[in-house]
Amino acid sequence: MTTPSAFQTELAAIAAATNATLDQLLPPVPGPEGRVVEAMRYAALDGGKRLRPFLTVASSDMFDVPRAQSLRAAAAVEMVHCYSLVHDDLPAMDDDDLRRGRPTVHKKFDEATAILAGDALLTEAFTVLADPATHPDGNVRATLVAELARAAGAAGMVGGQMIDLMAATLSLDDEGLKHLQNLKTGCIIAVGCRLGAVLGGASVGVVEQLGLYGMEMGLAFQIADDVLDVSATAAETGKATGKDAAAGKATFVDRLGLEGARNLAQSLAREAGNRLASFGKKAMLLQEAALFAVNRRN
Amino acid sequence: MTTPSAFQTELAAIAAATNATLDQLLPPVPGPEGRVVEAMRYAALDGGKRLRPFLTVASSDMFDVPRAQSLRAAAAVEMVHCYSLVHDDLPAMDDDDLRRGRPTVHKKFDEATAILAGDALLTEAFTVLADPATHPDGNVRATLVAELARAAGAAGMVGGQMIDLMAATLSLDDEGLKHLQNLKTGCIIAVGCRLGAVLGGASVGVVEQLGLYGMEMGLAFQIADDVLDVSATAAETGKATGKDAAAGKATFVDRLGLEGARNLAQSLAREAGNRLASFGKKAMLLQEAALFAVNRRN
Repeated sequence: MTTPSAFQTELAAIAAATNATLDQLLPPVPGPEGRVVEAMRYAALDGGKRLRPFLTVASSDMFDVPRAQSLRAAAAVEMVHCYSLVHDDLPAMDDDDLRRGRPTVHKKFDEATAILAGDALLTEAFTVLADPATHPDGNVRATLVAELARAAGAAGMVGGQMIDLMAATLSLDDEGLKHLQNLKTGCIIAVGCRLGAVLGGASVGVVEQLGLYGMEMGLAFQIADDVLDVSATAAETGKATGKDAAAGKATFVDRLGLEGARNLAQSLAREAGNRLASFGKKAMLLQEAALFAVNRRN
Repeated sequence: MTTPSAFQTELAAIAAATNATLDQLLPPVPGPEGRVVEAMRYAALDGGKRLRPFLTVASSDMFDVPRAQSLRAAAAVEMVHCYSLVHDDLPAMDDDDLRRGRPTVHKKFDEATAILAGDALLTEAFTVLADPATHPDGNVRATLVAELARAAGAAGMVGGQMIDLMAATLSLDDEGLKHLQNLKTGCIIAVGCRLGAVLGGASVGVVEQLGLYGMEMGLAFQIADDVLDVSATAAETGKATGKDAAAGKATFVDRLGLEGARNLAQSLAREAGNRLASFGKKAMLLQEAALFAVNRRN
């Protein structure tokens, strides 16, 4: 059985491989346009847990997809995640000066460059997925593109960001808050898992199953974030805590209390794990990931 | 032979069909996330000449591509063009309050919504191209995605915008200015033509030929814009004139004089037309388009 430390080892190994892939997919370019590529590299090579790439690669592994393919899909998902952080941090959005202890892209460069770097990272994700190096079958590549675009667009992540911007004035109920989080963070986490199944030639039903795992584990991850936001110190999480409350945004902890939020996260993580029952031991890493989502300290 | 007025009629007909396609591809959605879709519709259904959709459809027509397919590709190209205008107009970029006589998206809505609407339009373009309704063959769809992403990204349009933002401090020479315009506007105009050839199953060489036509006609169009910027009145062009000079950006008129710039535009339009020689009468509309690019009054 995979122990938690084996999972941590694999998480770190896939993060390192993702960084190498991103580094290779985003080479510096000469000339004045090189500035936007420099900003893209600053945004994308920054690190973080690389949870989304991990999920894409671990999902792909269940179908014996070559790592050379799954790491490209993982890099595409991570490019979309990183673009969303760059745009989210802009003064007109969340107005954040720091991310993971470093100046945000618009502080390090400037606002215009940050807007363009985000745009180009989003665009590059589709270049990567559409390239035959990601999969020899054009139908698979087109499906990867369709999946990622749907998850990232107005019916997914961008829609979630739109709701989040209005959240302080919307008085969202439990369902509204769940919908917001599913769109804002769940869709991209879920699509990372779906891409693995698509690369592996899985049936539509299996793609859907992996997607539900991702959506539930994503929501569990987000609720665990809310819990950490009030219960952990900034030193532990490496970011400002209590920020959502200060912004007047309802969190799961507000609505359910600390204990209620913890319980919901645990129950979602279990449900996510149950989605993988039919995969048996092949799903061990993804099972561990669901536990990690709710038991981490940062 | 197609007369200029037949061309104008076709340009208007394709613009109307593009509007209908965009309207259908971007249906309003309920819920708070509907706000970003409302902003996308405001940005994309606004009109303008619809030159890019025209070029995609007219190129596709040469290969007898069904309009149901070519209009989807045209709508995708136009979504990317419209997203670029929304982001370009932002305060951190060109800071424009008006476009085509209406408030820009960030004035009509707000900056955050404009950023998200641009992001979602870019994303939606790839959803459209990757959909089997655009072409039954997945390899063709993946190629359409790869083409559009390359033209829109850091090696294309976004790279051009990056250079443009720095242009006042770069003292670009003729080649530098041409490179800037080719990236900023030429790549997207060229890719519209290329997509028509890709949809039509044309060889790589023919796709390239259509792309060169588009690149040269795009540059001719841009130089003609510079000429109009100094020689026409705001009433004729419907926008502020003399703006580039005020921003300290070099234009082709600065570098070559009014007559020199006019001659270069005419010669590029002729070169663009020559790229189509082998298509004979099938290319009549595209030939007319190249003449229109340099002979228009607005």
